[in-house]
Formats: sequence, structure tokens, C-alpha cells
Amino acid sequence: MARRPWPRIKQEVSRERWVEIPEPVREVYKIWRPTPMFRAYGLEKALDTPAHIYYKYEGVSPAGSHKPNTAVPQAYYNKMEGTKRITTETGAGQWGSALSFACQMFGMGLEVYMVKISYQQKPYRKLLMNTWGAEVIASPSERTQAGRTILAKDPQSPGSLGIAISEAVERAAADPDTKYALGSVLNHVLLHQTVIGLEALKQMEMAGEYPDVVIAPFGGGSNFAGLALPFVHGRIAEGRQTLCLASEPASCPKLTKGQFRYDFGDTLGMTPLMPMFTLGHNFMPPAVHAGGLRYHGAGPIISQLIKDGHVQAEAIQQLECFEAGVLFAKAEGILPAPEANHAIASVIRQAQAAKQAGQRRTILFNLCGRRTILFNLCGHGHFDLQAYDDYFAGKLQDHQFTDEQLYANLRELEEVPFPA
Amino acid sequence: MARRPWPRIKQEVSRERWVEIPEPVREVYKIWRPTPMFRAYGLEKALDTPAHIYYKYEGVSPAGSHKPNTAVPQAYYNKMEGTKRITTETGAGQWGSALSFACQMFGMGLEVYMVKISYQQKPYRKLLMNTWGAEVIASPSERTQAGRTILAKDPQSPGSLGIAISEAVERAAADPDTKYALGSVLNHVLLHQTVIGLEALKQMEMAGEYPDVVIAPFGGGSNFAGLALPFVHGRIAEGRQTLCLASEPASCPKLTKGQFRYDFGDTLGMTPLMPMFTLGHNFMPPAVHAGGLRYHGAGPIISQLIKDGHVQAEAIQQLECFEAGVLFAKAEGILPAPEANHAIASVIRQAQAAKQAGQRRTILFNLCGRRTILFNLCGHGHFDLQAYDDYFAGKLQDHQFTDEQLYANLRELEEVPFPA
Repeated sequence: MARRPWPRIKQEVSRERWVEIPEPVREVYKIWRPTPMFRAYGLEKALDTPAHIYYKYEGVSPAGSHKPNTAVPQAYYNKMEGTKRITTETGAGQWGSALSFACQMFGMGLEVYMVKISYQQKPYRKLLMNTWGAEVIASPSERTQAGRTILAKDPQSPGSLGIAISEAVERAAADPDTKYALGSVLNHVLLHQTVIGLEALKQMEMAGEYPDVVIAPFGGGSNFAGLALPFVHGRIAEGRQTLCLASEPASCPKLTKGQFRYDFGDTLGMTPLMPMFTLGHNFMPPAVHAGGLRYHGAGPIISQLIKDGHVQAEAIQQLECFEAGVLFAKAEGILPAPEANHAIASVIRQAQAAKQAGQRRTILFNLCGRRTILFNLCGHGHFDLQAYDDYFAGKLQDHQFTDEQLYANLRELEEVPFPA
Repeated sequence: MARRPWPRIKQEVSRERWVEIPEPVREVYKIWRPTPMFRAYGLEKALDTPAHIYYKYEGVSPAGSHKPNTAVPQAYYNKMEGTKRITTETGAGQWGSALSFACQMFGMGLEVYMVKISYQQKPYRKLLMNTWGAEVIASPSERTQAGRTILAKDPQSPGSLGIAISEAVERAAADPDTKYALGSVLNHVLLHQTVIGLEALKQMEMAGEYPDVVIAPFGGGSNFAGLALPFVHGRIAEGRQTLCLASEPASCPKLTKGQFRYDFGDTLGMTPLMPMFTLGHNFMPPAVHAGGLRYHGAGPIISQLIKDGHVQAEAIQQLECFEAGVLFAKAEGILPAPEANHAIASVIRQAQAAKQAGQRRTILFNLCGRRTILFNLCGHGHFDLQAYDDYFAGKLQDHQFTDEQLYANLRELEEVPFPA
């Protein structure tokens, strides 16, 4: 078959400094890109901080998050390769929505295996995907062997992301015209997302500043990498001192509590092994509202950068995150996605540190304590208002793990022997 | 009391050509303004039309519609006048959300009387208002005499916009520090919305075109006036031939079936009489999903322009509108609000007419049948997915009125004696 070479595989192992964004992808990007960068004057005032706070807002995309940045090129490359249909899984629905939009733009079929409990609890996310022409199937389903096996054991199974992945992969493996697509973790996905940070570099230049701190939420790594990698390059190639800070949920602390091991990307162990900071592919995070961050491992690129000291991480509990998100909505007007609230909570910590430092310095040296902070507001919370309802109603809680719970899934994994 | 003069009253009766937007309002506008203007390449392709279609997208505002354009200056002017608290009503929730956002920006209190049936059916809209600090009260409530009177007669009353207005007005009338705010119809509201059309004029100039047709949905007039008035000025002052087309729901056809009479702005008859195209203030439109367009009358400015032949109108059934909205979501990626679907349906009619004209002309004269269409995509449909669900499920229907139903509420109203 005279198919074009697989650009996604080539991108996955590329050593090129620059990879061109294809023209048809740019045409679709034009619907919402470049995304706006805002100076958060309202938040600065609310925090009474000398820090300058900027944010890049990815919620203006049709699907409402940063996910279309990779969904669109993945749909395009698949189209070029002759793929007729894509399969994928979705939990909270952000990735499924983004890929539905992208497949619609290129006239491709899409099957989304949506975790059954989400399918039932989030009918609007499903409808959004339907409106863009995707078929959404509650997982486990009767359509695959994986689904039928689960249903035979437990007809009432609420499903899981691991099962949904298995169903999507099984469908893709059974048909040469069908391919499976993943929304984070892998190198080519992170590459696609760097459009965020490249735009941010130019926008910061227009604002006449360069960030001292760059912050983004951390799930599998695409959100964080998208904003931060161009600034990490500034550290490595230009000797800048920028603090690149990944903000992860305390309920799934792969970066701050996990270990650097060879692990699978999926729960069932169907992917190749990858070197990653991980809690083990069997780690089951509690059901927090920031569904997009409930992933056991970190993409290999970010894992290596953590190990090399170019990226820092902190874990934040969800009550602090929602408190930060509500403050942000009041101060800036935009209602953030629960995932984005993690970045906001980290920003507030940094801004308060800048304030304390500024006050100390004012007393001791009369120096300016200003600090420039840039963060990724990766999406809006229009489909996550149930989470805010639960927060206001006092139904959310923080999570504490025992060491046994955290490390039980790591024992069998091989340590990565790479040089530190 | 040394209060500043009432700028909103002055604006309501202003004869000035230009009214400056205050600096603090511009500061808040910066969160989402200027809004993007798009060339709808995807829709043009889907329709195979020679027409050039542009749209101004107001859904990028924090509340997701054009309503903050007037909510922000209204909150600001109230703040300047010394108002401590604003009251308002909301049905579907767009206006209540916008005013909640605006009041939060200026640190003002807000009481929103939300029609009880909407309060129960749309908890997410309520939560959005709560997140921005507004108090949302299901109407009819025990808080007002109007509410108590209704509840005494019918404890299970689902409420109505008329009742909610009465409650909000009663609360404002009872306290000198509290004022009532309205989201459409009045001259100062239309004035505030013209920021849309003024931006569009500049953006069309950047695109090197001038629209032959300008289209917007029509409820009370603020959405339509916001985009169209600067182009109506082009007709009157510059002799241009632009067709300015208001797209109203066939379920509430005040422009195409109503009459030009003196009528009240509210259902209970508490406002001054205004000259308006109306179906009568007691007209009760059926429960269609485009809640923002369920209003009995048209703002006086637009009514006079209709009478003078500078503005045209057409009424469209809701099934055609949802069909148009789904086509748009697939072609352009953005999920439109049900109100916006009316404009899209009108655009599709115009584009198809351009296509037919173009084909005829190609045969007869070999002339280009191109036509430039501009419309207002006044909001996104993220909180309206139940409407799309009902549409997909075949639960929506069109509405036919008898003359008796349409004209029953007009008999007692006085005709406007103005010169035609």
C-alpha cells in the first residue's frame, strides 16, 4: 500500500529542533489561535502582591481546553496516512471532545469509548461529542472482547479509563483503516502542545517581560510541556534561571512521590515500557474532580527534565485548588477548569512568597520584590460546574495516602538506569 | 445627597453621535474585547456558496454571550452613582450570569430573581452566578410582596419572567441604595452593545470587504442593535444598500407579525409606555429553547427603523434553527447558543440565495454572484446542551399560531401616531 510515512512515529523519535506545523493544521488553529495572554491585574490586586502575573488562556478553543492543539494535527496526520476512523477513550470528556472536533474538521470517523460512570454523569460532554459527529460508546461495551469479558464478570461495571483504553485499542487493532490516538504523555503530543509556549514567548516579549516562574497543571505532561518547554529551553540553552513548576494533585502525586521507573502508559500494560516518574500503572487515584490529572505517570521528556533538575513540582490538595479557582473567577471573571485550579493555587503560593520577599526587602534593602509569573489557564470550567457545586456544598475533601498505598504498585517495576 | 448625575438616564435620551466608553469599563472589556471576527470558510464550503460569510463571535466573554457588554457599564455607572446593590431577573440565565460577572468586577452586591422552573432545571447557570458572588433567588419567593401574593394563590407556581421582574423591581423600589438593571430593549442598553458593530466595521475594513447583508438574532433588540446599528448608519448617512436583517423566532414573531403600538416593557405594566413593535405585554410565547428571544416587544429604536424600512426581519421555526446550528458546529467547530442559531439559519438562507443568483448569473451574464454576509454569533451553547439533546431526540417542534392567539393581546394598545 502506497501510504505516506507515519509522521507521528517520526515525530515521536525526532531529534530536530523545529518541526513545521502543516498548513491545513494552521488553518484549523486559526479558529482560536493565537490564544490570548492576559496580565491578571484583578488577581494581583486581590492578592496585594508585587508580582506580575500573566496567564495564557487555552479555554477559547472550541472544545474549551488545550487538547485540540494535538487533536487537530493527529487527525490531520491520520487523514494523510489514509486512516478512515480513529478510536480513543475519554474519562472526564475533555480529550474526547477535542478529538471529536478535530475529526469533524477533517471529515473522519471517530469512536469514543467513554467511561460508563462519566457517560451517565456527564451527558452534556457526550452531547458535545455527538454534535461534532462522533460516536460515543459507554465502556465497558458489548462491542469488544475486552468489554464483553468485563461485562460477563460484572454487568453493572461502572468502567474505568484502563478498560476504555483496552476497548479503543482492540477496535483499532482489528481494522487496518482504524487507528488509536492518545491525548498526552507521548513525545509527539508534547511537541504539538508547544505552540502554547512559543506563542507565550512572543507575547511576553510584546509585554516587555520574561517570566521568573512558569507554572502549569500536571496530568500526563502535555499541558505543562506545552507552556513550559520553550522556557526550559531558555534555561538550558540561554542559561536563564526560570523556575518551571509543575502543579500536580496531591491525590495523584507521581512527580513528588513517584519514582523514575520503566512503566506502561496504560493500566493493562499494552503500551511499550517508557521511562517515567510513576506511581505504577495499577495505581488507582481517588475520584477527584480534576479528572484530567488522574494519571499514574509522567511523560518521558518531563520525567527526564525533573530528574535533571530543570523542572520542579509540587502537589496540592483539592480544597486549596478550588479555593484558588473561586478567587480567580471572582478576580478575573473566567471560570477555570478544576485542572487549571492547580496552576492557580501554585501561582498564589508564588505570589504570596513574592509579597513576603518584597516586604522583607523593602525593610532591609528597599529593593523591588517584583517577580514575573506566567501560568497556563488550560481550560474553562463550563462543563465542570458540578465540581463547584460540590465544593460550595462542602462535599469535597483532601486525600492522604499511606506509604503502602503510594508504593504498592511500584515494587515490580525496573528502575531506569539512565545517568542522572 | 451629593450623587453624580444619572448617566444611564442621560444616555437613554442622548442625541449625541458619540458617547465615550469610560476607562474602567474598557479595562474590564479587555478581558475579552475586541472579540474575534472570523471568515466562515468551513460553512461556506459546506454550503457550496459563492458568498463570503463573516461572523463576530461574542461567546468569548466570561459569561459566554454579548450580555456583559452592557452589564459592565451598567454596574460601573451604578457604582459611580453610589448604588450598593443591584437587583435583576433572569430566565435562561444569560443576563443574570453577565450581571453577576459585572457586579463582581466592581465589588457590588447583586440579587438575581431566577424563574423557579429555570432555577430547578438549570443548576449550572445558578452556580455560575454564585461563583461570581451573586445571590440567586428562585422566583416567586417569600422575599417580596409580589412573590408572597403569587405563592399564596399557588404554592407550586413555576414562576415567570414577569413575576421575577416584579420581585426585582419591588426590592429596588424599597431601598434607595438598590437599583434595578435591565439587559435589553432600552436605548442605553443598545448603545452599550454597539461596541460589537464598531469593532466589526474596523475588522471588515481589515478584511478588505464591506457587508452586503448584516444579520443578528432578535429578542428585545440589544444583540441585533449591537452589531447592526453602525451599519444602519452606513445606510442612512452614506447611502449604502446594506440589508440589515433581524432573525426572530417564529414562536415569538413581534417584528413580522406584531404591530407598532405603545406598550409596556414588562408583563405586569410597571414600566413607562414605549413605542414598539409588539405582540402585547401579555403575550405568552411557547417554551422554546431560545429563551433569550422569548420577549413580546422590540426596543423603540429598532421598531422605528423597521417602520422606516432601514431594518428587515424574518421569523424562523426552531427546527430549522437547530439544523443550522448543528451544521455550523460541524463546519466551524463552535457550538452556538440556541439564540445564535436563528442568525445562522438566516445566513444559510441568504447564502443559498446568493448561490442560486450566482448560478443564474453565471449562465446569463457570467458575473460573480458573490455576496458578503456578516452575522453576530452572540454566544456559545455550553449551558444549552439539553436543547441539543432534545433536538437530537426529536423532542423539539415548530409552532403555529392562530390569528386569535397572535393578536388577542394587542386590542387594548394604542397605535403609535408617529409619522411613517
